[in-house]
Amino acid sequence: MKRYETIHEQAKQFIDRLETIDRERVNGPVIQPVDERSLARMDALGIPTDGRALEDVVNDTIDHILGPTVPANHPHFFGFIPGPAERVAWLGDVMTNAYNPHAGGFTMAETALHAEQIVLDFLAETIGYSTDTYGGLFVSGGSMANLTALVAARDAKLEEDALHRGTAYVSDQTHSSVAKAFKIAGIPTRNVRRVPSDPDTFALDVDALEQMIQRDANDGFRPFAVVGTVGTTNTGTIDPIESIARVAETYDLWFHIDGAYGGTVLLSEPYRHLARGVDRSDSFSWDGHKWLYQTYGSAMVFVKDRTHLFNSYETKPEYLRDVESTGDKWNTWDVGIEMTRPARGVKLWMTLQALGTKTLSKRITTAITNAEALERMIDDLPMIERISPASLGIINFRFIDDALDERALDAWNERIVQTINDRGDAGLYTTMLNGKRVIRLATIHPDVTPEELGTILRTLTRIAEQTK
Amino acid sequence: MKRYETIHEQAKQFIDRLETIDRERVNGPVIQPVDERSLARMDALGIPTDGRALEDVVNDTIDHILGPTVPANHPHFFGFIPGPAERVAWLGDVMTNAYNPHAGGFTMAETALHAEQIVLDFLAETIGYSTDTYGGLFVSGGSMANLTALVAARDAKLEEDALHRGTAYVSDQTHSSVAKAFKIAGIPTRNVRRVPSDPDTFALDVDALEQMIQRDANDGFRPFAVVGTVGTTNTGTIDPIESIARVAETYDLWFHIDGAYGGTVLLSEPYRHLARGVDRSDSFSWDGHKWLYQTYGSAMVFVKDRTHLFNSYETKPEYLRDVESTGDKWNTWDVGIEMTRPARGVKLWMTLQALGTKTLSKRITTAITNAEALERMIDDLPMIERISPASLGIINFRFIDDALDERALDAWNERIVQTINDRGDAGLYTTMLNGKRVIRLATIHPDVTPEELGTILRTLTRIAEQTK
Repeated sequence: MKRYETIHEQAKQFIDRLETIDRERVNGPVIQPVDERSLARMDALGIPTDGRALEDVVNDTIDHILGPTVPANHPHFFGFIPGPAERVAWLGDVMTNAYNPHAGGFTMAETALHAEQIVLDFLAETIGYSTDTYGGLFVSGGSMANLTALVAARDAKLEEDALHRGTAYVSDQTHSSVAKAFKIAGIPTRNVRRVPSDPDTFALDVDALEQMIQRDANDGFRPFAVVGTVGTTNTGTIDPIESIARVAETYDLWFHIDGAYGGTVLLSEPYRHLARGVDRSDSFSWDGHKWLYQTYGSAMVFVKDRTHLFNSYETKPEYLRDVESTGDKWNTWDVGIEMTRPARGVKLWMTLQALGTKTLSKRITTAITNAEALERMIDDLPMIERISPASLGIINFRFIDDALDERALDAWNERIVQTINDRGDAGLYTTMLNGKRVIRLATIHPDVTPEELGTILRTLTRIAEQTK
Repeated sequence: MKRYETIHEQAKQFIDRLETIDRERVNGPVIQPVDERSLARMDALGIPTDGRALEDVVNDTIDHILGPTVPANHPHFFGFIPGPAERVAWLGDVMTNAYNPHAGGFTMAETALHAEQIVLDFLAETIGYSTDTYGGLFVSGGSMANLTALVAARDAKLEEDALHRGTAYVSDQTHSSVAKAFKIAGIPTRNVRRVPSDPDTFALDVDALEQMIQRDANDGFRPFAVVGTVGTTNTGTIDPIESIARVAETYDLWFHIDGAYGGTVLLSEPYRHLARGVDRSDSFSWDGHKWLYQTYGSAMVFVKDRTHLFNSYETKPEYLRDVESTGDKWNTWDVGIEMTRPARGVKLWMTLQALGTKTLSKRITTAITNAEALERMIDDLPMIERISPASLGIINFRFIDDALDERALDAWNERIVQTINDRGDAGLYTTMLNGKRVIRLATIHPDVTPEELGTILRTLTRIAEQTK
């Protein structure tokens, strides 16, 4: 196809430049302020009437659009959950998008759905769901995974005219997408109860949960769902899964686990026991683009009993019969929200093939032990107070000084973070825990070492002394 | 980065092979049955413990996963809405996924969000929404766009305890994702009224709509939303937009337009008048991966008054103030369902830059005139009954014979389609219209010509004679 030659040439030239781009991004400052001239340049270009030369478009995209974004996959970016995408996943994007299959149903993309299902089966088994009965699919992210599962929870437990009386239970550390999902599903926000978490471990307080359920039931509400998290965003905490499961079973609640981040611990041989009991949940969210090293737009949702997904999402009953008759294959449009969808799972299939589970287990384990090493270093420093234990590669701490009150401590810790970000040594942010402004590190990049974490800690300490 | 060398090399080799792949896909049969050996090969591979050589993984992906998918971008694939993705959009994927920005908010990806907003502003103005007041974002597809808008509609019009009394109005030709969106939003499926469509034009019957609204209001229901379509999936029909707008204004209903497919007609200078009145809607869905030539995972939703999006999706009120104060920039997590999301719009920005609006207008216009040319050819053939007029590049017809009853006609037309698919000349499917099984063609591929459409019509006619 002659007309594609220029485009293919540009793509190959971009890949050649990618080596330089990588080097510059890794050696340069982690976070850079946006140059207003980039925004002005884009405004000036507008949307043109006549097409522009492809090479110019590519250069503008590099210089003014993609180049100035924060490299969330930089080894020293510790903010949010970093996005250390494996380059194999990108190769999967290059290939999948070139073929661009319509992966909503078997008619158009049987082999792509088969590859997705091999990955889903493997991970469902890892959770402890039976591959004979579970259902699931790839979605675009954790918010979509939570929404997909919680609509199924609603339909399984509440009649259509009882939505405003339904109550659901999350902890004060649960990701905001869960409350958003309930709101989208028609559950009033005031009915989403925030169960307190333990001030030391930040794990959901199961006694408080049970009391709240009982009170709501007595008050005429309809408790119908509880959400536990494996790897909270703030602290990497794993909620007490087995105790929550017991409560859910006692009061007939749907038990959803948000494992978007921490679900991946199930693939670490030495640490998978930490998430014991997840097989007792009714549904499970798991992101590819967090700790499974995928590019953005990759997550999965699993439901123990797939008939709940069909009940909520299947729109053509005659299709359902076909699916049931094969028993273990489903069109994704029958079990989820989307109709047309890209073949999101092929790149994870490729990543798992290229890495193998042994390397993956080692990589996940190292992320966890790195944060534990940082914890030991922090505990040796009297000017630092550790706020949360190292858990699933996340740790929180703050600099303290008896001469400063709480407000001054908050401001000081913010200054410290701002300074190291401005210097370009690292990318990290603060969060609020127990009413305190604290410094949060997520250490999941496969290239970061305990030695480098020690260096960053010493830099932070120097900055702290200079900015007090 | 040395460890990426192999991956970059594989990517470049894949691009070199892409020329062959393109040629084989365009010259080969449009639809091929899946070779069971591909599925067996993938089952045998499973998920390995030890990583495999990247080259082998790439070859398996080509041979057994991506290669056997249906080429929805083949010039002779006329089924569904085809996916004739512009190769520039793929180049955008290659580049965007290499940088992999976290494009949920300005903190991480200000320039990428700026590029998306330039595209959104341009298209919002094309709809006729004010860029001072509209809100919108890129989402993964039309189902998500419809869901995002209809949850906002629900929140704008119904109290939380009135969901089960809310009624919404769609036509019997409205895309199934609309009913699914209402269901997800907590509106009972039985409350989504299917307004009949005109048997000749397949456009929503506005008189019937108004009667249904009045009856529901009298019966104690709460009519709150009506959905019109610009470019129905079956027939490419544009509903009577201005009449629906009048009804929506009279009864205080939210007026949503599903322009996922046909919204793109607004970019055709000679045909944009067909969608007159779309500026009177409250929200609008528009797909990139249909007629804007994007790879899958690209759609947009527009809401005339952005405060409705903030009301439904913003979870941290202090952010809202910042956004309102700048007036025209928003974090996508404040106006939509997702939190972490890929920078979906950069590739459309690149496509618009490289093509320019003039080429785009010509390409869209040609898709429409191609179907019109096919209509003229069909109307000259006595053995063919045209079921729907050529509209936005879609046309429906069937072969007829006085000797056959309706059931036999249905079976015959199915046989004709099955035969041409098996021969590999074209990829097309039947649909049901007015209770009849009919042959549906969507002619939006930029490489297809009236001459080729004539050849396919002659082939169909020959097959019809042979299979009667």
